[in-house]
Amino acid sequence: MEPNPSSNNNTMMQQQGGGCIEISMEVHRVAPPPPRSTIQKLGSSLKETLFPDDPLRQFKGKSTKRKWILGAQYIFPVLCWAPNYTLSCFKSDIVAGLTIASLAIPQGISYAKLANLPPIVGLYSSFVPPIVYAVLGSSKDLAVGPVSIASLIMGSMLSVQVSPIKDSVLFLQLAFTSTFFAGLFQASLGILRLGFIIDFLSKATLIGFMAGAAIIVSLQQLKALLGIVHFTKEMGLVPVLSSVFHKTNEWSWQTIVMGFFFLVFLLGTRHVGTKKPRLFWISAGAPLVSVVISTLVVFAFKAQNHGISVIGNLQEGLNPPSWNMLHFHGSHIGLVIKTGFITGIISLTEGIAVARTFAAIRNYKVDGNKEMIAIGLMNMVGSSTSCYVTTGAFSRSAVNHNAGAKTAFSNIVMAITVMVTLLFLMPLFRYTPNVVLGAIIITAVVGLIDIPAAYQIWKVDKYDFLVTICAFFGVIFISVQEGLAIAVGLSIFKVLLQMTRPKTVVLGNIPGTDIYRNIHQYKDAVRVPGFLILSIEAAINFTNTTYLNERISRWIEDYQEEESSKHSCLRFLILELSAVSAIDTSGVSFLIELKRNMEKKDVQVVLVNPLGEVMDKLQRANEAQELIKPSSLYLTVAEAVISFSSTLPPQAV
Amino acid sequence: MEPNPSSNNNTMMQQQGGGCIEISMEVHRVAPPPPRSTIQKLGSSLKETLFPDDPLRQFKGKSTKRKWILGAQYIFPVLCWAPNYTLSCFKSDIVAGLTIASLAIPQGISYAKLANLPPIVGLYSSFVPPIVYAVLGSSKDLAVGPVSIASLIMGSMLSVQVSPIKDSVLFLQLAFTSTFFAGLFQASLGILRLGFIIDFLSKATLIGFMAGAAIIVSLQQLKALLGIVHFTKEMGLVPVLSSVFHKTNEWSWQTIVMGFFFLVFLLGTRHVGTKKPRLFWISAGAPLVSVVISTLVVFAFKAQNHGISVIGNLQEGLNPPSWNMLHFHGSHIGLVIKTGFITGIISLTEGIAVARTFAAIRNYKVDGNKEMIAIGLMNMVGSSTSCYVTTGAFSRSAVNHNAGAKTAFSNIVMAITVMVTLLFLMPLFRYTPNVVLGAIIITAVVGLIDIPAAYQIWKVDKYDFLVTICAFFGVIFISVQEGLAIAVGLSIFKVLLQMTRPKTVVLGNIPGTDIYRNIHQYKDAVRVPGFLILSIEAAINFTNTTYLNERISRWIEDYQEEESSKHSCLRFLILELSAVSAIDTSGVSFLIELKRNMEKKDVQVVLVNPLGEVMDKLQRANEAQELIKPSSLYLTVAEAVISFSSTLPPQAV
Repeated sequence: MEPNPSSNNNTMMQQQGGGCIEISMEVHRVAPPPPRSTIQKLGSSLKETLFPDDPLRQFKGKSTKRKWILGAQYIFPVLCWAPNYTLSCFKSDIVAGLTIASLAIPQGISYAKLANLPPIVGLYSSFVPPIVYAVLGSSKDLAVGPVSIASLIMGSMLSVQVSPIKDSVLFLQLAFTSTFFAGLFQASLGILRLGFIIDFLSKATLIGFMAGAAIIVSLQQLKALLGIVHFTKEMGLVPVLSSVFHKTNEWSWQTIVMGFFFLVFLLGTRHVGTKKPRLFWISAGAPLVSVVISTLVVFAFKAQNHGISVIGNLQEGLNPPSWNMLHFHGSHIGLVIKTGFITGIISLTEGIAVARTFAAIRNYKVDGNKEMIAIGLMNMVGSSTSCYVTTGAFSRSAVNHNAGAKTAFSNIVMAITVMVTLLFLMPLFRYTPNVVLGAIIITAVVGLIDIPAAYQIWKVDKYDFLVTICAFFGVIFISVQEGLAIAVGLSIFKVLLQMTRPKTVVLGNIPGTDIYRNIHQYKDAVRVPGFLILSIEAAINFTNTTYLNERISRWIEDYQEEESSKHSCLRFLILELSAVSAIDTSGVSFLIELKRNMEKKDVQVVLVNPLGEVMDKLQRANEAQELIKPSSLYLTVAEAVISFSSTLPPQAV
Repeated sequence: MEPNPSSNNNTMMQQQGGGCIEISMEVHRVAPPPPRSTIQKLGSSLKETLFPDDPLRQFKGKSTKRKWILGAQYIFPVLCWAPNYTLSCFKSDIVAGLTIASLAIPQGISYAKLANLPPIVGLYSSFVPPIVYAVLGSSKDLAVGPVSIASLIMGSMLSVQVSPIKDSVLFLQLAFTSTFFAGLFQASLGILRLGFIIDFLSKATLIGFMAGAAIIVSLQQLKALLGIVHFTKEMGLVPVLSSVFHKTNEWSWQTIVMGFFFLVFLLGTRHVGTKKPRLFWISAGAPLVSVVISTLVVFAFKAQNHGISVIGNLQEGLNPPSWNMLHFHGSHIGLVIKTGFITGIISLTEGIAVARTFAAIRNYKVDGNKEMIAIGLMNMVGSSTSCYVTTGAFSRSAVNHNAGAKTAFSNIVMAITVMVTLLFLMPLFRYTPNVVLGAIIITAVVGLIDIPAAYQIWKVDKYDFLVTICAFFGVIFISVQEGLAIAVGLSIFKVLLQMTRPKTVVLGNIPGTDIYRNIHQYKDAVRVPGFLILSIEAAINFTNTTYLNERISRWIEDYQEEESSKHSCLRFLILELSAVSAIDTSGVSFLIELKRNMEKKDVQVVLVNPLGEVMDKLQRANEAQELIKPSSLYLTVAEAVISFSSTLPPQAV
């Protein structure tokens, strides 16, 4: 009845579709995986989970002194590039650093206002963190500073409980403490090598989320652009628009004219910069030019007396220490931790994505976990020196890259420029109108709305597009953090649902070959009478064993209905397990049950090509020994079919 | 440079391991899946998700009248068996029904006490629900009634907020309302065909949870077994043991002696029943015998005056209506919904598992979703007729099966027996001692501790065992519902973690064949110089693209290090995608990026056997067209290797 699989050479005639081919076939045994102890398995699975990049490989086989140097370079990437630093690098970095500084100063002031913080905090945050990053960071292109979305989230989350106007000191304390927690959280993810957590923000989620956040941020700028004095504190689309149209009496035409002019100028230069990367300096310099021109205009016409609101006095001097403002107790601690967590993960996602993008363009590697530690420490240091949450900003890094930055030294140049500004140039910003800051923010965030990418998602995967629009509408109608939570929840739900419903496909033989493929995808593939060949295309675990049971019964019923007309009855159920990457105890029980139930129907279950882990677990289960005896275990479908064909009664073939 | 894959017959010489074999090979095209519209795809994926059993297939091609009959039989399975009911079935069902009634009466009283409810509610719950189930349920073996774990959970969750002694009426109202919500939730899961939600309670979770719950239940019986009057209201191991040893003065030796005697008797008969299934009636009848003997003993010796507590007066009469006791508002509504949800899902899991187990033994089918509707409606009807949550109990169903039940009519026999008891026999329970009820509960739950199954889990899968012990210790040290939540969370975390770290394995050629397998599992498999053949063994999605990127870079570095000594450089990266069951937009971007990065290194990326869904998504993405051009897409690894081998410079082969 059962052929002997150790027989070395089975030459037999197989008749198919009228033709007749002779197939000379050796039957191969399925090898069990090499034996490993539980500790070895635990070790290798921990290594794959936490150290997929194998950070210690560069230390292998090196002398002790070399290991120390490599270790120091690993912790302080500055040691990699500083010793080989050349004059030509220096020249490039100076140019890039000055360029990003001209962008960082107006953006710093603007983003701080977005976070409901004093404008000067934005400049402080463009001074200390870049220096820390230059020492610890491994990206050559990342330009560090405050970013729009993290600023928006921090401002909106904190102002739910504390008013930034009435309780400005408490608000500032909460902002610094949140920054500390954001940094702590980021650094911990890196140190514990749990960086994969940010992967749960899928591309689809981020595109919807960014676009929604860009709209929320732009809506907030209507206050400055229209010159409204009593603006809503809420963030949603509905309350903001209702506030705008209920306060038409506060609209100031001078502000609107000025805002319109600078918005057109900034969007125009941005367009030029996007179309012709060589002219990047036009879009990079435009914000500073706008600030200078608008300030001069206000100063010349005394426009602050004609309804145009200005920044006002800014204190000169470098970052004051702020560690005494960190509060780790009190009634707001829950809010602060939550804000730190969300701003931390969002800014980390942006920073890592930017670093990876430019590393891929310039063909070097950044280590995600190391970057997380660098960004985290930068924020922890920042929280003690009057800075709020910072990361690598996409727009600024793009300018840095285009301006020819060679190393992280351009960040230091930027920091020094900001320092000079803080020390000597603060009075110049006294007459800078808020409306131009609003225009600068809108110009910066409008690039976050990526319609072509959303269209690509629609084309490729409809469910991913659903995630995108849920993130988008969640952010603009509910709230920034809830929109994000909905999108992440949906993404995870999708993968779990996919797991509960693994695909099972019927394989057929491609005539004249020993290849077996899905008969629905390959129209020329033909079924082999007497055999039902199913391929299970996912890990078998507790989430899907019930489904697999039902689905396989349905395949068998389908087969029997179809074949009842052809008078050939089902004799062999061949399960092709090449795609079953893992199995758990429920899965093992499922296979055992399946074999038992099939035996009642006089159908033999044959396993084909179980992978290492599956073989391993089947070997360990007492009751599964029947499943993995050599006569029901084959390396390829073709070998199984040929071995068993000879046992079928002639009319069935 | 690139071979023409449409060439029909490529006969070439391949030199391997010194030997020389002639392989005649036809190159096959990878077929795209048959085109389907978005609506068709949505339809088929909804069908697979919600209707894997295809419940409407039996209606296909039938006459209208037949369809009506089938429809009525679908809704009321009683119509399937009632018309063909025979006298011999009737005789068997009478015997089985009387047997389970003798078990159900003492268990009903005991479990109601476990739920902190009046004992008579347990009898009510053994009268109405079995009748409802007999009409709606599709299992022939399920014996319906209150069960230990759901009783325990309901009692413990409700008594956190309401005292069952001081506020007994409110407690009863909450219990009935919880039962209503449990039924509503169960029926909704069935109607919405979301039954797969119970699959998330894996076997590993359930084994740990059941064992923990059995210990918690047994600990509660120490009150009755030791005769303690002032017992703790808490459930955990620590408070119960501390209460037991702080109240040694309340221990009653008469109670302890009686309890010990009956516990030994019950466990002994249970042991006989387990070892010899033919003697099932010994263990099935033992509880009733214990109740009768102990009641006679108490009555004869007036033992109630000697420290043995008794049930006391029970009201005669059938279930009073209780729909006026359902409260859908008020301060406890949150608790009631939560209790309903947890008891509902736990009792559903038990009922479905029991129904499936016996259906498999007797080789008939139960429809999970239909069973959910039946159990749900049974509980909703029960909540209006003074019943608390009921389901198919494992121990009672086993007795029913062993006693020879043929149809659900045995449930009706049991219900009638309980009805007779309720109408005429209630005074007999007046002197039944509580200690014997405690012994009955312990005997029933001790079977839930399945050490051999836990040992099998330990042998097969260490992580699953971790889930088991977390469920176990969570239940006994924290709380029943939190222990369950921890175990479910860990199970889901495991599958998500597995998804973030898909296996990538290097394939090698098994000499003399065109089979390519994992070189770590198959020691005779040899690498092909110039080629790196990787098999990705999971769906590629947002959770794992970053990891895959890093892991593949490491494989390439490994290859280059190894091969640098052999002077053969990497020319082709073959990705075997047979096991990639799905891909999303992040996955598509990953493949596009990979191709781009590899081109910089002068390595050609070749895809082998992408499945239908993967092909479909790659076709839709504009930038992926390069990936699926015929010259870099093959049906098998062997065809790809042979086609490209000819393009390699001779020294590399």
